[in-house]
Amino acid sequence: MAKTTFRADVSWSGESVRSVARIRNKEVIIDEPTSLGGTDQGPNPVELLLAALGGCLNILITTYAPLHQVEVRGVRIRVEGDLDPDGFMGKNPNVRPGFQEIRYHIQIDSPSSPENIRALIEHVERVCPVKDTLKGVPVVPVTQ
Amino acid sequence: MAKTTFRADVSWSGESVRSVARIRNKEVIIDEPTSLGGTDQGPNPVELLLAALGGCLNILITTYAPLHQVEVRGVRIRVEGDLDPDGFMGKNPNVRPGFQEIRYHIQIDSPSSPENIRALIEHVERVCPVKDTLKGVPVVPVTQ
Repeated sequence: MAKTTFRADVSWSGESVRSVARIRNKEVIIDEPTSLGGTDQGPNPVELLLAALGGCLNILITTYAPLHQVEVRGVRIRVEGDLDPDGFMGKNPNVRPGFQEIRYHIQIDSPSSPENIRALIEHVERVCPVKDTLKGVPVVPVTQ
Repeated sequence: MAKTTFRADVSWSGESVRSVARIRNKEVIIDEPTSLGGTDQGPNPVELLLAALGGCLNILITTYAPLHQVEVRGVRIRVEGDLDPDGFMGKNPNVRPGFQEIRYHIQIDSPSSPENIRALIEHVERVCPVKDTLKGVPVVPVTQ
């Protein structure tokens, strides 16, 4: 398949730091809690990144389950990430601004064999586009 | 400041591949277009990752504008990423599953000096937690 370009258009709502992301015909509000200067109307950007990872794993699990003869009754994925605000606030040059580690825990409710479930999870972990992107990707500013 | 742990809980809605991410008291629907087996009720995970980057840049621009004496009237950030589905579909082992490149374009509507606007953007690019995370981060499965 040819390379596909995905896109999100983010704009400032004019209200505190509240942002609106438009993705095709969808809209997602990105905000901060009031303690961080926002209006608390949506998840913050780093939380949204964790949600993207969890969503990606979940979508692949439900997509590839039949291939691995796994009957899925439920999926729950907890995603956590550690970040030290001293990094992006510039208080400590030795602390990176972004996440230091991201962890996820997958729980599949299924009557299928543990071997098949394990093979499904290994497949998904190997091909997950968001997980793979988090290994590192060039992020390039463009001027027009 | 001490390390902070952020969290998202993603679960399968039971309907096609549609996922629900719960983040504090917020909810984000993550889905795929019908052509990819979803119900098209939300952005897909890789689009959400792009939105997180745009939201992060936007929130930092509006947060740090006063520090750089920049009056902000509007912000628009376009984020794009190239991904070849052959990677995650396993059709070509030489293609990575994730994004190959992510690009962003920042447009700030402001009457302030170009020098101050440039300094603001440079500051934001340097400290953006999502942009920094995309340089690479350990993503670790946990078993309980």
